[in-house]
Amino acid sequence: MFKVQSEIYQFNGKLLKLQHESKLTNTPMDVNVYFPNKTGKLPILLYLSGLTCTPNNATEKSFLQYFASKYGFAVIFPDTSPRGANIQGEDDSWDFGTGAGFYVDATEEPWKNHYNMYSYVHKELQQELAKQFDNLDFDNISILGHSMGGYGALAGFLKNPGQYKSVSAFAPISNPSNCPWGEKNFGNYLGSDKSKWLEYDPTHLIKSYKGDNQPDILIHQGKADGFYAKDHQLQPENFVEATEASDYKGKVLLNVVEGYDHSYFFISSFVEDHVKHHIKYLGL
Amino acid sequence: MFKVQSEIYQFNGKLLKLQHESKLTNTPMDVNVYFPNKTGKLPILLYLSGLTCTPNNATEKSFLQYFASKYGFAVIFPDTSPRGANIQGEDDSWDFGTGAGFYVDATEEPWKNHYNMYSYVHKELQQELAKQFDNLDFDNISILGHSMGGYGALAGFLKNPGQYKSVSAFAPISNPSNCPWGEKNFGNYLGSDKSKWLEYDPTHLIKSYKGDNQPDILIHQGKADGFYAKDHQLQPENFVEATEASDYKGKVLLNVVEGYDHSYFFISSFVEDHVKHHIKYLGL
Repeated sequence: MFKVQSEIYQFNGKLLKLQHESKLTNTPMDVNVYFPNKTGKLPILLYLSGLTCTPNNATEKSFLQYFASKYGFAVIFPDTSPRGANIQGEDDSWDFGTGAGFYVDATEEPWKNHYNMYSYVHKELQQELAKQFDNLDFDNISILGHSMGGYGALAGFLKNPGQYKSVSAFAPISNPSNCPWGEKNFGNYLGSDKSKWLEYDPTHLIKSYKGDNQPDILIHQGKADGFYAKDHQLQPENFVEATEASDYKGKVLLNVVEGYDHSYFFISSFVEDHVKHHIKYLGL
Repeated sequence: MFKVQSEIYQFNGKLLKLQHESKLTNTPMDVNVYFPNKTGKLPILLYLSGLTCTPNNATEKSFLQYFASKYGFAVIFPDTSPRGANIQGEDDSWDFGTGAGFYVDATEEPWKNHYNMYSYVHKELQQELAKQFDNLDFDNISILGHSMGGYGALAGFLKNPGQYKSVSAFAPISNPSNCPWGEKNFGNYLGSDKSKWLEYDPTHLIKSYKGDNQPDILIHQGKADGFYAKDHQLQPENFVEATEASDYKGKVLLNVVEGYDHSYFFISSFVEDHVKHHIKYLGL
């Protein structure tokens, strides 16, 4: 059961800030859902945020709701980790623990009773929302995300054939088993056996994807994004190469855009392109 | 001379975060300017923010830049007060002092050597920007704002006939000499002689406005905005009544919108309407 923390009018629709008790994270979880002013079943975009973000960052800065209102779909903005699990070390660094659930189901102590964001965003959250909001059409849902959430969207799409109509990403961590952020998070949540990491790595998953649904995958990457150009955390080219070498029928439409950084100014600049990508697949 | 603190790509244009030394506030002042990707002279929207805001709030949350890029105008986001003037009491309350310059030129001690935001936003800032950025067309500029900035926009338009092509406001403090926020700020900055307050009060200024340029004035006001419905800080109806009783030829287009609050979710919902209002007058 979700409690409505606030109901905010925006773009002729309503933004609900919700909270519920998750059985998977064993914490209260916040989630924002935007409902356009439209009757009948609503197609859905599920937006997964990046490191450090709460549901509010993208809600305030992505501008997705403008297009959700214009084209008539709902948007779900989950949180990026449990908060307040009180695990030692979860608040020690900005890129691990709180705000950095990394969209996996942890198998290692002390994380595994709380840090289960994979099953949380792809299963529990959707099942619980479906019970309470019967105008949300979870049979007509697409997924996108930014950075850690871009990886989360790609992995979620590839691990659940048929669940999502389409997928796109802004500056995704495309090959997480092979970059410092992935090594830190996978190592802690999943342990040292790297074969377990590959089960969440889009650049690995695409090689054996067997779903019938093989849409084009839209990615934008800012060329002036330091996590891309300097730190090699993102590596979208690895994902493109792996896809091209695979049997996947869709294309990866990778746009490396001159001058853009990793911020919400980058995301908001290309959100319209991503919306136009998804609404084709959502039948809008 | 403005220092460029950062240059950020957005919507195919550039957002510059600038800082300069103001002779009127005797402090460093931050200002954000968005330049669309367009050659030639750029029409301008000057956006005045509300209580507590820095230039960044509206820059991140209003989505003016999306429309600035689409229609081809620049946007200037000034700060709302001097910061770091080190005047005793300036940080004691959220609605006075820092973040609350109230767009007046203070005449009272200890404020008058710093709190001169009226002349700062309508004169010095524009003159200085014109020197450094010769594609900004200060002969083709309109003004809008939110709350304290909505009042600032209305007062600035009415006190400077001919300077601005058009004016609009989101939830403006429409009759500041007659509400708690105005009484607190005018009282401190301008002293106890209320005739001085009227020189900044839109509901008073409209009565004697003599400019040739008398465009319609667009105002949106959320009906669920507590500062409107409960605290009577905003009172746009007073401005409408005064205008109707005056010789002003334009209409006040007041839209009191059901359900909306005072936040950036409200502003972003109606920014497109305000842009469409202004671009007519800016010749776009």
